[in-house]
Amino acid sequence: MSDLADTQRGLSYRDAGVDRDVANRAKDRIGALVRSTTVPGVLSEPGAFGGLFRVPEGLERPVMVASADGVGTKLKVAMRADRHDTVGRDLVNHCVDDILVEGARPLFFLDYIGMGRLEEGVVEALVAGVAEGCRENGCALLGGETAEMPDFYAPGEYDLAGFIVGVVEEAKRPGKHRVREGDALVALASNGFHTNGYSLLRRLFFDRLGLGVDDPYPGTDASIGDVLLRVHRSYFAPVHPLLEEERVHALAHITGGGIPGNLDRVIPEGLQARVERSSWEIPVEFRMVQEHGGIDDEEMFRTFNMGVGMILIVDAAEADAVVARLTEAGETAWIAGDVGTGSTPVALV
Amino acid sequence: MSDLADTQRGLSYRDAGVDRDVANRAKDRIGALVRSTTVPGVLSEPGAFGGLFRVPEGLERPVMVASADGVGTKLKVAMRADRHDTVGRDLVNHCVDDILVEGARPLFFLDYIGMGRLEEGVVEALVAGVAEGCRENGCALLGGETAEMPDFYAPGEYDLAGFIVGVVEEAKRPGKHRVREGDALVALASNGFHTNGYSLLRRLFFDRLGLGVDDPYPGTDASIGDVLLRVHRSYFAPVHPLLEEERVHALAHITGGGIPGNLDRVIPEGLQARVERSSWEIPVEFRMVQEHGGIDDEEMFRTFNMGVGMILIVDAAEADAVVARLTEAGETAWIAGDVGTGSTPVALV
Repeated sequence: MSDLADTQRGLSYRDAGVDRDVANRAKDRIGALVRSTTVPGVLSEPGAFGGLFRVPEGLERPVMVASADGVGTKLKVAMRADRHDTVGRDLVNHCVDDILVEGARPLFFLDYIGMGRLEEGVVEALVAGVAEGCRENGCALLGGETAEMPDFYAPGEYDLAGFIVGVVEEAKRPGKHRVREGDALVALASNGFHTNGYSLLRRLFFDRLGLGVDDPYPGTDASIGDVLLRVHRSYFAPVHPLLEEERVHALAHITGGGIPGNLDRVIPEGLQARVERSSWEIPVEFRMVQEHGGIDDEEMFRTFNMGVGMILIVDAAEADAVVARLTEAGETAWIAGDVGTGSTPVALV
Repeated sequence: MSDLADTQRGLSYRDAGVDRDVANRAKDRIGALVRSTTVPGVLSEPGAFGGLFRVPEGLERPVMVASADGVGTKLKVAMRADRHDTVGRDLVNHCVDDILVEGARPLFFLDYIGMGRLEEGVVEALVAGVAEGCRENGCALLGGETAEMPDFYAPGEYDLAGFIVGVVEEAKRPGKHRVREGDALVALASNGFHTNGYSLLRRLFFDRLGLGVDDPYPGTDASIGDVLLRVHRSYFAPVHPLLEEERVHALAHITGGGIPGNLDRVIPEGLQARVERSSWEIPVEFRMVQEHGGIDDEEMFRTFNMGVGMILIVDAAEADAVVARLTEAGETAWIAGDVGTGSTPVALV
């Protein structure tokens, strides 16, 4: 707005950086994606002031379980690779796993996209990823907000956050209150970094090692972009049936803070989860980070999931059966330790 | 990470821009703010993987109503004025009004803050505003995410988004399906710009007129910062009792798109809401923007609320009584037109 000519004429919203036509076109396409996720219970059309979802019937005491999350700096990898249709799946799956550990099945999801100037293709790819994640988990994309914020985000950049609501029967809630001495830990394999540790990963690969997204990931045949953009796994399909049968005492979703920083949230005072590090082999992706970054073990385990995406705490007598059920469902699962007593809630032994 | 010394030693998460101790301190203080909003129904403690809220009893067919929103570029005014404790209230009130037009009372809220580097005082002020907004509307702050995103946001900048869930009895839902020819429009006064049109406002005051937040707002005794940061009003307290009594056919929350771009969402095919512009005086704040910006009427009405925060559509025979009830509740309310027939859903006459 610095040229003289401009100061002579009236200001319009478009001059100020917001193009309503582009916004309306994007809305139409997003509407179609939203409709692709409809499940029973949805009462609203895309574009209403609020999204409407009927409380499911047949539950004695239904409890809503909600969680908010962002994708974090994994987004920067998506921008570098110019691939915007996977991070929405990361976001949905992360949220699904967060409420799964409270026993919930997902009902609906809403997203928030902040962007400097609406880039139609990028918005559509982001929402397409969110919609795909919703379909995979049987939840409705009930609404969302795409905010055009001139001067907030650098060209080509954006932020993506999401919000999920699920439901659990109150009497079936797993949690710390069910965990007993002698319980077994059952680990479920992650498929990579999921959504944690990306500030460190970017610093290491792009800044320190000077590599790009198309360069091979050390120790593998895949590109750095492929490895770093692998989608955060949802454990809903294999794990929820076990929750319905009340075969799980508690669960921990391994996100920021790693195994020690998440498993501790479900260990009662005085007890200790003993995680046997020899029970699984740390995947090569993590070993390469440790080697090239010169990072000590403790920092690695506090920053990354180290190959474990979720830990279930079950009765020791049930552990083999639970592992078998998860294996049948296509998971890599194993007994990774037990619950004893100790002064710290989690020990890596 | 460009100095040689650095490349000789191991990478830690703190080097990569994330300080876990600062994050943990912020979490503790946020926990106290979250607890201040607790209402019956909340089952979870701050810091759980998911927030838990019991579905309210006593409803025949409860429907959840959800909405996601951001504060938008009003945030830039807060940053300029270095006042971070009001935008959280804007966000909650905006969300409350969005689900109020579906008939819902708010149950719980979750926030998302994206920030380059955690600034403890700023995060606390933001969440304090959110918590205050929640208390004012009787809803619980059930969870949230504060994401530290090195390299995403400029120093001192952030984004703030939120998600709300409320509940409505299915049979009591207001909406387009209840609107009839001959209905009356009842307008509720806004208290300023609420959260819309801020890209244009910033361009006008800060860029074109070269003013600062402490300069007087043209035509008023208040500062530009005070006028632009006035908090988006929640209409829950005065309006919800009328919804419980089923005295309202439909409602429109006047946000981006103004009166024509929001009222049209609740006008059935073939009908037309006729808004009488002479029924109220456009407040001075808007008139000054129009005058100094050289903006035409249509653009003004499409960008700003022009002094109207919400419009209720009611039976014509009820209109005086509804205005009286709203006035008793402390609102400035008036009959602002009616519903007739016409080729466009909304006409400003």
